[in-house]
Amino acid sequence: MEESLKREIEATLAAIRPMNKEAMAVVRSRQDRLTKPAGSLGRLEEITVKLAGITGNPRPRVDRKCIVLMAGDHGVVSEGVSAYPSEVTPQMVFNFLQGGAAINVLARQVGARVVVADLGVASDLPEHSGLLNRKIGYGTRNMMIGPAMTKLEALKAVLTGIEIARQEAEKGMDVVGTGDMGIGNTTPSSAIVATFTGLPVSMVTGRGTGLDDSGLSRKISVIERSIEINQPDKSDPLDVLAKVGGFEIAGLTGLIFGAAAAHIPIVVDGFISTAAALIATEWYPPVCDYLISAHNSVEIGHRAMLEHMELSPLLNLNLRLGEGTGAAIAMSVIEAATRTLAEMATFDEAGVSESESKLEITQ
Amino acid sequence: MEESLKREIEATLAAIRPMNKEAMAVVRSRQDRLTKPAGSLGRLEEITVKLAGITGNPRPRVDRKCIVLMAGDHGVVSEGVSAYPSEVTPQMVFNFLQGGAAINVLARQVGARVVVADLGVASDLPEHSGLLNRKIGYGTRNMMIGPAMTKLEALKAVLTGIEIARQEAEKGMDVVGTGDMGIGNTTPSSAIVATFTGLPVSMVTGRGTGLDDSGLSRKISVIERSIEINQPDKSDPLDVLAKVGGFEIAGLTGLIFGAAAAHIPIVVDGFISTAAALIATEWYPPVCDYLISAHNSVEIGHRAMLEHMELSPLLNLNLRLGEGTGAAIAMSVIEAATRTLAEMATFDEAGVSESESKLEITQ
Repeated sequence: MEESLKREIEATLAAIRPMNKEAMAVVRSRQDRLTKPAGSLGRLEEITVKLAGITGNPRPRVDRKCIVLMAGDHGVVSEGVSAYPSEVTPQMVFNFLQGGAAINVLARQVGARVVVADLGVASDLPEHSGLLNRKIGYGTRNMMIGPAMTKLEALKAVLTGIEIARQEAEKGMDVVGTGDMGIGNTTPSSAIVATFTGLPVSMVTGRGTGLDDSGLSRKISVIERSIEINQPDKSDPLDVLAKVGGFEIAGLTGLIFGAAAAHIPIVVDGFISTAAALIATEWYPPVCDYLISAHNSVEIGHRAMLEHMELSPLLNLNLRLGEGTGAAIAMSVIEAATRTLAEMATFDEAGVSESESKLEITQ
Repeated sequence: MEESLKREIEATLAAIRPMNKEAMAVVRSRQDRLTKPAGSLGRLEEITVKLAGITGNPRPRVDRKCIVLMAGDHGVVSEGVSAYPSEVTPQMVFNFLQGGAAINVLARQVGARVVVADLGVASDLPEHSGLLNRKIGYGTRNMMIGPAMTKLEALKAVLTGIEIARQEAEKGMDVVGTGDMGIGNTTPSSAIVATFTGLPVSMVTGRGTGLDDSGLSRKISVIERSIEINQPDKSDPLDVLAKVGGFEIAGLTGLIFGAAAAHIPIVVDGFISTAAALIATEWYPPVCDYLISAHNSVEIGHRAMLEHMELSPLLNLNLRLGEGTGAAIAMSVIEAATRTLAEMATFDEAGVSESESKLEITQ
């Protein structure tokens, strides 16, 4: 069983192609002919080059936007690592389905659809047309006592993410943003960062939704103990994911694999989403080219992960909410990039003189 | 004449009221009841509080957006301080009117109208329904030889900005972004920063649209010499503006005064706009409360100005284009802020449990 699931994942990874260098060169050349000093649109120009590399389209668009929001619960919450109780996870899922959460508002603004998937909420959720029931378990087990998931569960969650990516790609998707909901999920995320970067747990662990000082030191001890008990093997990302990860994190790792295999750029939200992206890039490094980091989270472990992956976030708005909120906001910057590439006049079209240095070159 | 213009400006400044603390408190209280951990939307929450303070509206909106783009030329360009010739200023104005420039594309995306005003382009521009002809002079004089403008010219330009703000406010404007076009205008902007901050010219002078090393050192010498010749008096912002400023910079200073007097938030674009904002805040410090800094420009002098005014930019996208491009992008973040405030469900509405610490307080 495990082996057949692994083979399915490997088939997906094999479909991830390298960046399309020709399309990137076409975009760079057009950027230099648009009516602005070369390079003056900074990161917007970089984004257009990256999107061309990912999609192979020299005039990439991001009209069809999607946020995939994965939910799961965490057994380790019983150790008092969160300011909110686990019952808030299903309550927030209802809020997403009713359209009242921050991600609903922000997705509406940028014209993104929101797909909500239950990968491992600890209670039964009623059927709802807007909810994908993909429950693999009723919350993870308490990782301070033993592995959060079995390897089989983790593989199933990764494959579920791949399937959701495939299904949404078929509906039409130019860009996908990652989102998470799961009370307690900064705790496994910090454990994942500490494992891969080798940094002390205290340097990569923050207050989550609002722990006080004693809560924070308890959370740090819990993570240290979880790593000690489980001994996750950093050379085996599946081992790390199963032992100190979570259902929604594994699902997001799969979503990244599936989107990359479909040549779709992935906008990675904050701390939890980046932990999923870290698992993905450790598992299969070429996937990193497909990632756009949306924003710099308040969670202190976030920067360490981004540096480890050599990703530079687009925004720094002191967000720490998750749900894909930063990804949704970043999508308007990404759209600004694609629109300037597509809609600006060139020097020739506008009859504007180029800079003196340029004119010398072309004489 | 000078005295009557000064009195008109003073009447405008007298209409600028302090922040509305009641509206700000209402917004803070609502932010704490929305379905998210308190403070987790970071800068978005801060923006909503600030907008409430400016407008007095506890549910501020930014539906009617406007970018005011002011153009002017600079006599100092004859000293070789820019990679582009002055003829590009009117060429780019045509480009704005035809809708082919970056600011047109970005303003369309966020639904902002673009108002283009000629404050001091060095050539005659044909009549165009989209262009406000408010020319005060055919470019400034070469500030390396003497004052760029007379005080009377500078006052006229400031008043022109005030009048444009008033006129656009009457049409309906919830937020205004500043934009500039003027070949050579990073040179007066650097001179303004150096004058007010006391920092060495070399520390606040960058490559503008793309100077090479020898061009940059020439630009630094020109600015040093201009300050030496003119001896701008930093205790008299009008003196600084006239001697080492520019028509479009003075117009933007007036725009800021006029918008603040109409209780409208001002999104300050990059280096040149911030130089205008610096003049405004040195002239009348309470106006600073009305400013939102859009982004951190690549120009090295920008940060020094922002620190001097204690403003923190929303975005850091390595832009260095001007035109109001950063302001337009920042408007989508500001709209995200107002939308989350207005449209998110509260804990009560959504039936979501608050954090344990909160529940204890309310028991």
